[in-house]
Amino acid sequence: MDTILKPLLRDVPDFPRPGILFKDITPLLANPSVRQKVVDSIALHFRSQQIEAVAAVEARGFIFGTLIAQELDLPFIPIRKAGKLPSKKITEHYSLEYGDAAIEMHVDALQPGTRVLLHDDLLATGGTASAAGNMIQKLRGIVAGYSFVINLSFLPGNSLLKEKFGVEPHFLVSF
Amino acid sequence: MDTILKPLLRDVPDFPRPGILFKDITPLLANPSVRQKVVDSIALHFRSQQIEAVAAVEARGFIFGTLIAQELDLPFIPIRKAGKLPSKKITEHYSLEYGDAAIEMHVDALQPGTRVLLHDDLLATGGTASAAGNMIQKLRGIVAGYSFVINLSFLPGNSLLKEKFGVEPHFLVSF
Repeated sequence: MDTILKPLLRDVPDFPRPGILFKDITPLLANPSVRQKVVDSIALHFRSQQIEAVAAVEARGFIFGTLIAQELDLPFIPIRKAGKLPSKKITEHYSLEYGDAAIEMHVDALQPGTRVLLHDDLLATGGTASAAGNMIQKLRGIVAGYSFVINLSFLPGNSLLKEKFGVEPHFLVSF
Repeated sequence: MDTILKPLLRDVPDFPRPGILFKDITPLLANPSVRQKVVDSIALHFRSQQIEAVAAVEARGFIFGTLIAQELDLPFIPIRKAGKLPSKKITEHYSLEYGDAAIEMHVDALQPGTRVLLHDDLLATGGTASAAGNMIQKLRGIVAGYSFVINLSFLPGNSLLKEKFGVEPHFLVSF
C-alpha cells in the first residue's frame, strides 16, 4: 500500500503544535478508489478473525471505521468524547501529553463476549486506543483486533497495545 | 423507510438539556442491513443529480457521509470544528441556541464549480447545515443537495435551507 497511500498523506509541519509533523488524511478521503482499497485491505485482513463489531473513536476514526463495518457487514459502535452520547454509558479517563481527556460508550453497545475490532486512522502514543480497549473490556467485550491506517513507529503505541491487549495492531503504512 | 427505520431511532428524553427529546441513532448503527438500506436509499435519490463530492460535518455526519460518498464513488470532504483541520482553511461562525460555534473546511477541498452534496444525520434548526453551505459557496462550489436521515419538522431547518440554497432537503424520516 505504501506507493499508492503515501502520496495521499499530506505532511503539515508544526500542527497542532510546534515540532509536530501532522499526517493529514484529507487527500486520501478525496480519492474514492484508493479509499476503497484501504477499506478492502483492512477488511481482508480481519475477515477471517471472527470479528463481531467495529468500534471507533470520534471524529476521524468514524470515517474508515464505518466503511470497514459496512464492508464486513457488522455493527458499528461509536465511541465519543464526554457528554455526546445520550443514553446510559461508561466513561474512561486518560492522560494526553497536555492534560486529560475522557471518552464514552453506551453500556448496551455490546453483549458480553462480543469480539470487537477497534479502528482509528493513526496510532501514535496509543493513549486513546488503549482507553477505548479498556472500555470494551469493562463491558466484558473482547478486544479482538486493532486497526490503523497509519502507524508512527517512533512512538510507543504499537508495543503498548500489544502488551496490554495481546493483539498485534494492524496498520497499512508506517512512518 | 418509516417502518424499518423508526424502531432503530431511540428517543432519549431531556438530552442534552431538559425538554429536548434526543433522537439516538446508535441502534441504527448497530444494524448493518438497515444501515445499508439507508445508504442505498440516499445514494439512489442523488445518483442522477450529477453530485461530484459529498461533504459532512463532524462527528455524526461523518458516519453516513462517508458511506454515501463510498456508495456514489465520490470524494469525501470533512467539515470540522474549529482548530481540527491542519492545512489552509476557511472558517464559518454561526449562532446556536446558546452561544456561538465555528466550523472549518480546507480551501483545497473543492474546485470552483464542484457540485457538493451536504449530509448530516439530523436536520433541526438548520444552523450547522446552513453554515456548511455558506462555506461551500465561499469556495465557489455549488450546494447541489442536502441529505439527512432525520428531519424535525417542528423546527425551521427545512424551509431555511430551501430558501437560502434553492434545493429541497432530502430526508428519510420526519418527526
